Amino acid sequence: MNALASQVLKGDQRSIARLITLAENSDILASQAMKDIHPHTGHAHVIGITGVMGSGKSTLIAELTSEYRKKGLQVGIIAIDPTSPFSGGALLGDRIRMMELATDDGVFIRSMGTRGMLGGLTSAVYDVVEILDASGKDVVFVETVGVGQAEVDVVKIADTTLVVLVPGLGDAIQTIKAGVMEIADIYVVNKADRPGVEQTEAELQSLVDISCSGKDRQIPIIKTAAKEHQGIIELVNEMERHQKYLKKSRLFDTQRRKRYEAELVEIIRKRLMNFIFDESTFKEKVEILIDQISKKELDPYTAADEILGKIIK
Amino acid sequence: MNALASQVLKGDQRSIARLITLAENSDILASQAMKDIHPHTGHAHVIGITGVMGSGKSTLIAELTSEYRKKGLQVGIIAIDPTSPFSGGALLGDRIRMMELATDDGVFIRSMGTRGMLGGLTSAVYDVVEILDASGKDVVFVETVGVGQAEVDVVKIADTTLVVLVPGLGDAIQTIKAGVMEIADIYVVNKADRPGVEQTEAELQSLVDISCSGKDRQIPIIKTAAKEHQGIIELVNEMERHQKYLKKSRLFDTQRRKRYEAELVEIIRKRLMNFIFDESTFKEKVEILIDQISKKELDPYTAADEILGKIIK
Repeated sequence: MNALASQVLKGDQRSIARLITLAENSDILASQAMKDIHPHTGHAHVIGITGVMGSGKSTLIAELTSEYRKKGLQVGIIAIDPTSPFSGGALLGDRIRMMELATDDGVFIRSMGTRGMLGGLTSAVYDVVEILDASGKDVVFVETVGVGQAEVDVVKIADTTLVVLVPGLGDAIQTIKAGVMEIADIYVVNKADRPGVEQTEAELQSLVDISCSGKDRQIPIIKTAAKEHQGIIELVNEMERHQKYLKKSRLFDTQRRKRYEAELVEIIRKRLMNFIFDESTFKEKVEILIDQISKKELDPYTAADEILGKIIK
Repeated sequence: MNALASQVLKGDQRSIARLITLAENSDILASQAMKDIHPHTGHAHVIGITGVMGSGKSTLIAELTSEYRKKGLQVGIIAIDPTSPFSGGALLGDRIRMMELATDDGVFIRSMGTRGMLGGLTSAVYDVVEILDASGKDVVFVETVGVGQAEVDVVKIADTTLVVLVPGLGDAIQTIKAGVMEIADIYVVNKADRPGVEQTEAELQSLVDISCSGKDRQIPIIKTAAKEHQGIIELVNEMERHQKYLKKSRLFDTQRRKRYEAELVEIIRKRLMNFIFDESTFKEKVEILIDQISKKELDPYTAADEILGKIIK
């Protein structure tokens, strides 16, 4: 076995960080280690957390992490930040509680951007989940901000997905109505000590009544006030209940298959796109084609045909 | 020339709608028409509009469209909606003004989702811009919600990008600080009749002072109250000024090249992924590999190698 993989399996924090960096950079050294750790994955409960900015997701994750730590469980946290690499300073305020956790050896925190022309990040997220899982983390949080493709993707990675709302945000309810509805396994109304919580809860409940009608599981709504440590234990219990439900209903395997399928798609996409757009073999050809498209001598579809003709068997 | 392409070039609304649908579905019929229309593109001023939900983007676009129509210009509007196909009802309220415009033959409006497992939508957005451009639209708006990859992508499509904020949203400023800063060509403070507008403007101005320091163009900040028809003419003037600046500074060609490059990447990505994951040739093989990954008999990287080995020359 690869030496780095072996250190990761022992839970060595520096080796975990190193393998993550290699995976993010699509380093050739990462592939071998990723191959070696795969048989040791599948243990962690992967929890996706999504919600608009300002809904207190980071504080919530910090509180949940403290709770899991009290139970003796190890926790990994992946914060997918659409604005990285510029986020360091701006979001630091939100993450002070998380920084405190970073000194705990049973916790590993990683922030990742979603940038990159070829959209190369998503596959790295799968890698990081696998790495943290293999390293012995019992729970892995994947946090995303806002609504969009990243949210749709996180559902494919997570066993349990939390959608976090705050009272008084009519927009949030509208967003959920409009499409995020089906991604939630659990709704969290955070900052539940604020006015308007009853209304938000009632609106959510009527959505749940409609969407879960006739289904064997109702989406629970949990109220929390993460800063005041309220509702955290209830939420942990609810997440554990969901994990049990998945395992009992065989949905667990379906969910995991979806993750592996999405991961395979990502790896293949990334390799192919790197092969075409980053390797020197094609770079010059691509430049010439773009020139011709700009001058209207060629259209993008014919250009794509030309490149594909050179690549595909 | 393809008959459909020929009708699109004449500006026939039903043919435009039909070609867009074909392109969205990656229909083989679309490719030929797309090839035929490409030489007739490049005329439209493509304007990206991004900002959080509730910032009044739809109303703003409706007002801007009315203003352009008064000038005798034709307008295309593409609303990229991360929550489609479920959005029809939910966002309708925002779009009432837009619906009024839909009866105007000089305006074409299309709402598009961002869904699809293989992320197939983005290439369709490039297609729709090309179709509206070729059909004789002088201005094409591309509206996106929130922050994320869609926003980063829209910049590649647009000649001019507007970032829309509203007074009192501290989060929005933080978002901009965190990474959306560099995408704006013009800041719009909408709902500028609300309290807190001076503070938002001052905060934005200090960001502009830092980010545009030493550059030959300062990012302008335009205050609008779209519902009250305020600031609309100023904003149209500012957008036209930006277009002239692009053309004068040769940034226009650089920008267009970027668009074509991104479009080419998208077309190739989509074709390859469809080829691997949708065609029956590989479908069964992929299923078997995912089974093996799930059972830990195989890792995703080795599985990817196997598939790529079958495809690439």
